[in-house]
Amino acid sequence: MSTEKLYFRCDYTEGAHPKLLEALVRTNLDSQPGYGFDRFCAAAAEKIRLACGRPDAQVYFLTGGTQTNQVVLSTLLRRWEGAVCAETGHIAIHEAGAIEFTGHKVLPLPAVDGKLRAEDLEAYVQRFYADGTHEHMVFPGLVYLSHPTELGTLYTKAELSALSACCQKHGMALYLDGARLGYGLMSPGTDVTLRDIAELTDAFYIGGTKVGALCGEALVFPKGNMPPHFATMVKQQGAMLAKGRLLGVQFDALFTDDLYFEISRQAVALALKLKAAFLEKGYPLFIDSPTNQQFVILTPGQAERLGRDVVFEPWEALPDGRLATRFATSWATTEEQAERLISLL
Amino acid sequence: MSTEKLYFRCDYTEGAHPKLLEALVRTNLDSQPGYGFDRFCAAAAEKIRLACGRPDAQVYFLTGGTQTNQVVLSTLLRRWEGAVCAETGHIAIHEAGAIEFTGHKVLPLPAVDGKLRAEDLEAYVQRFYADGTHEHMVFPGLVYLSHPTELGTLYTKAELSALSACCQKHGMALYLDGARLGYGLMSPGTDVTLRDIAELTDAFYIGGTKVGALCGEALVFPKGNMPPHFATMVKQQGAMLAKGRLLGVQFDALFTDDLYFEISRQAVALALKLKAAFLEKGYPLFIDSPTNQQFVILTPGQAERLGRDVVFEPWEALPDGRLATRFATSWATTEEQAERLISLL
Amino acid sequence: MSTEKLYFRCDYTEGAHPKLLEALVRTNLDSQPGYGFDRFCAAAAEKIRLACGRPDAQVYFLTGGTQTNQVVLSTLLRRWEGAVCAETGHIAIHEAGAIEFTGHKVLPLPAVDGKLRAEDLEAYVQRFYADGTHEHMVFPGLVYLSHPTELGTLYTKAELSALSACCQKHGMALYLDGARLGYGLMSPGTDVTLRDIAELTDAFYIGGTKVGALCGEALVFPKGNMPPHFATMVKQQGAMLAKGRLLGVQFDALFTDDLYFEISRQAVALALKLKAAFLEKGYPLFIDSPTNQQFVILTPGQAERLGRDVVFEPWEALPDGRLATRFATSWATTEEQAERLISLL
Amino acid sequence: MSTEKLYFRCDYTEGAHPKLLEALVRTNLDSQPGYGFDRFCAAAAEKIRLACGRPDAQVYFLTGGTQTNQVVLSTLLRRWEGAVCAETGHIAIHEAGAIEFTGHKVLPLPAVDGKLRAEDLEAYVQRFYADGTHEHMVFPGLVYLSHPTELGTLYTKAELSALSACCQKHGMALYLDGARLGYGLMSPGTDVTLRDIAELTDAFYIGGTKVGALCGEALVFPKGNMPPHFATMVKQQGAMLAKGRLLGVQFDALFTDDLYFEISRQAVALALKLKAAFLEKGYPLFIDSPTNQQFVILTPGQAERLGRDVVFEPWEALPDGRLATRFATSWATTEEQAERLISLL
Repeated sequence: MSTEKLYFRCDYTEGAHPKLLEALVRTNLDSQPGYGFDRFCAAAAEKIRLACGRPDAQVYFLTGGTQTNQVVLSTLLRRWEGAVCAETGHIAIHEAGAIEFTGHKVLPLPAVDGKLRAEDLEAYVQRFYADGTHEHMVFPGLVYLSHPTELGTLYTKAELSALSACCQKHGMALYLDGARLGYGLMSPGTDVTLRDIAELTDAFYIGGTKVGALCGEALVFPKGNMPPHFATMVKQQGAMLAKGRLLGVQFDALFTDDLYFEISRQAVALALKLKAAFLEKGYPLFIDSPTNQQFVILTPGQAERLGRDVVFEPWEALPDGRLATRFATSWATTEEQAERLISLL
Repeated sequence: MSTEKLYFRCDYTEGAHPKLLEALVRTNLDSQPGYGFDRFCAAAAEKIRLACGRPDAQVYFLTGGTQTNQVVLSTLLRRWEGAVCAETGHIAIHEAGAIEFTGHKVLPLPAVDGKLRAEDLEAYVQRFYADGTHEHMVFPGLVYLSHPTELGTLYTKAELSALSACCQKHGMALYLDGARLGYGLMSPGTDVTLRDIAELTDAFYIGGTKVGALCGEALVFPKGNMPPHFATMVKQQGAMLAKGRLLGVQFDALFTDDLYFEISRQAVALALKLKAAFLEKGYPLFIDSPTNQQFVILTPGQAERLGRDVVFEPWEALPDGRLATRFATSWATTEEQAERLISLL
Repeated sequence: MSTEKLYFRCDYTEGAHPKLLEALVRTNLDSQPGYGFDRFCAAAAEKIRLACGRPDAQVYFLTGGTQTNQVVLSTLLRRWEGAVCAETGHIAIHEAGAIEFTGHKVLPLPAVDGKLRAEDLEAYVQRFYADGTHEHMVFPGLVYLSHPTELGTLYTKAELSALSACCQKHGMALYLDGARLGYGLMSPGTDVTLRDIAELTDAFYIGGTKVGALCGEALVFPKGNMPPHFATMVKQQGAMLAKGRLLGVQFDALFTDDLYFEISRQAVALALKLKAAFLEKGYPLFIDSPTNQQFVILTPGQAERLGRDVVFEPWEALPDGRLATRFATSWATTEEQAERLISLL
Repeated sequence: MSTEKLYFRCDYTEGAHPKLLEALVRTNLDSQPGYGFDRFCAAAAEKIRLACGRPDAQVYFLTGGTQTNQVVLSTLLRRWEGAVCAETGHIAIHEAGAIEFTGHKVLPLPAVDGKLRAEDLEAYVQRFYADGTHEHMVFPGLVYLSHPTELGTLYTKAELSALSACCQKHGMALYLDGARLGYGLMSPGTDVTLRDIAELTDAFYIGGTKVGALCGEALVFPKGNMPPHFATMVKQQGAMLAKGRLLGVQFDALFTDDLYFEISRQAVALALKLKAAFLEKGYPLFIDSPTNQQFVILTPGQAERLGRDVVFEPWEALPDGRLATRFATSWATTEEQAERLISLL
């Protein structure tokens, strides 16, 4: 195995943060009920409620991101409704039609830097209801955002507030996909807090898989608004874990002593260090990301040369022959690895 | 917490066998691709192929049992087909309609001791095709078995062969739910081997969650008959794990040095010891199970008294006021715990 | 073509009652909006409201029976719910899995003479909620009845009331499939009126296809309880007719001058005349039906001989070699045809 | 009622062509089997096979257009596939999510005058398979065209051939929605024949509802390629008519003495007469349609004035305040009505 190579391909190429493994080992023999009724899930949920500043929040732990999106949309949307999202949204492209599999249409709108704009959303909804034939169309019932977006970018608090207001005005739920939420919250420039998200959305999830866990996402209904019989629907979608403790133990560890935020802060810091180095050495950015994913444009020669020592993600072949690429950091990225990459630029 | 209590409620109340945790810790920093393309999944699949005696078998790791049943049935069944099963089958009752959620009907037949009989299956299929209106009915497209069954019982090789022959004759797939497969294979009286199952079925899974893993089931298509674009359909159902390594590492450990079978052998031995003790002390059995789940009938007084020290599963309230109960063993059950329970009888 | 043969196979072998064709011809050039917004649908709905004695009833015209059942169940059931019915119910057997296609389980209970008994329903629901694992099962959300049943039998008002009370008690909707409703309402012995049905159910349909129309069923939500955005969901299921007038014109004719009831009354009278003749000549009944379908047991010899002149429906091969058969009357059955059949017995 | 008004709103505001009603009356008492096994369906199918020049074609009669699209796509698409169409395609917008309801994604591409271009399709498919992550995306499995399009425009034979070649090359089915097919085939300038369509597509339907029938579409699998167990799947979708004769009789009449083509020819001739008049009087076209739907731009004043005497369809509010409108002709449009409209311009 090429153990010498530097891995920057994505944020899920290693196992879990050591503290999570330690917690799994430590709690292993504690006999607990199945299906999420264990004491670890309860403790983790309580810590998340505290972090969100919402004592009435309901937390449900699921295994993966696509699964969580599918569960949320298929339980929040009504039969006649679809989910609006940015055309670059994960549910619109890279989930193999998971939303449609449950009977709902995805309604993509133009995106700017991976973000949905409130003005575009408002215009879309206005046009929809003005259309005399809209009873024959799929109603916009929910708005899906990812934060950070698929391009690593972040909504500002003003942008989130505007989207939330538009949703409230038109009776749409607002759902935020936080697969990499920690990296967004710990980005130096952001003005969006976890409490803001809990206040402005109807549901969101705190991603674990890409922020240090073996698996697991913490789905939050911040206003005590979990749909009735939610667990039965989770079971019906094949998404209920028998040993729910696996998720509870990990999230309990992640939300103990701010580990989740610490992991994220460190990964973002290294990513921004890489960005500075890329810019300094004259590599153009594909997009300017303030989070743990950095998107850099390489010439074929650069890609070839760098590829000998570094594993990165080919993102998109550009018309001019160059290659947009992604370099991601995670809890497993070390200062030393970052330095080695920088020395190779 | 009543840490003193004895836990016999089910086989998923603790974490994972220590060797699996060790493997997770040991491999934690190995950078590997996501989505099951890691080297651990590859190694585990190879070991399972060897154990099945089928070099052409295809193995896919999923997270849980209901998920696996849902994925298999919704990819093997055609639009006009449903799944035949014993009326006590897990898919017919305790999966919250997961099969119907994907558009397919479950077709329950009478069960004897939790088992489907080939003669009942044959008669059902004969009647179906003899019916002049069967084009308006759901076609039997697949037969679902669980082994051990939901009642801990086992098919004999002759019974499995007869069911398999009936399936082949009528063009139905045969699928075996092995959530507790190890306990069946290691039951002293069984004449069914893993190779038999690989030979007689079109798909089956080797249960991990209930046999020592944190989560995970190894789905096997023993004859190179995995449906095309299977991974895309798994993704579409929200069942693909980003860090597939979590499953690969665990199954690699389970199939190293026969750990899977050793875990199962030991749990069955303790369960049969309990059964002997129950019988000796005059407790009637609800059903005679040769595997790790024992079903015992208790009077209300016995249930109350035993319940003070032991956590067991209330299974079914009997018409005469007594209670059928389940006592299950697992990798986490010790000789000493079994002795303590016996001394309480 | 064997135009000489007598047709008693079913009640949909001819076109439409002549008055419906006349109405279609008469109204043909009247320009009207599509999708059920025409004046004929409005007029027919008003007449049905009057016949039901429910000014607040909402009426929606659909094309066929399976379609109507599918639309009703998939709009009234919630994600975690299934439909309870008699094991002989149409949705459980002869709709090719149409309910499951929309994601919902059918929950069959034992039937007596094709009817669901309130005591069986109550016991089922009691057991369901008493089961500690019911959160992992499909909730009974709606009860489906057919009246007349698939075997031509009828509920009494007391039976309907008991079922309705059980539904109300447990928060289940009550839906009545009236594919042959007219024949039930006009059966001499019944004490169930259209008003009773409108009072006791949450939804029902007045069958047109089998009671004199070319196609069409009038779905009634008797208490102004049509689900929101119902038309959009009908469209989504491909069940909305562009020229809704086709249904409106026919139902307007059926509910003018009691034509619907007159058609039904006459067909039942002829069917009961046949039943009397069968009994008089010593033919045993398969079931004692008071409606337009008569179920008679024939020896192979009788079936062969009668089959030369009469087209009837083979219903079920009996274990003793005899054949249960169905003879159905309709608006198209004449007194003279009935006499000819009787003379052949 | 404003019976004096002129109706040009759409092509389904009246009943059926008189010859179809006559046929329904004439055949009314002929006893025939249900579910499409009647002799009228057989005769109509044979006539359609002849008209298509394909003795191996299979024909199935369905009730409406959305229903037909839903049935075709959900039976031809495989689990991992979606349907590509022009962004203006009916399935993408005005079917309330009927395709997604059956679990499949609609994949809209840019449209030019309502038409999908082969070059755009080819580029899309190329990009799809070049994408390293396409296993996580919905595969393009079928291409949906409407002809005439939703904007009344027509593909040329060269365009259809190029699309067909692209589909064959990439293993995609080609399906043509012919809701208004007759108007396309009878357009003076077209070089596309029914035989061309039968040769170039894998499935298409000959629209009846909008071309003179009360209801009904003739779905054609031109190469004997009807999916297995198709009727069972139709039943499963609630789309099977008990009195299939209603569709058979009408299509038998439509394909007797070229009535279908005659109806279409006449309606197109009147529509083109209107177009010439609009142009002559200086009304700009919204789009240049060679078929029975004409799209004209009106000022608010013109719309108001014309609206006093004529019912037309408001199509789209233009940014400059003017209104795009639709005027449609049908079998029910008379020369005299066309003249009256022209005189009002």
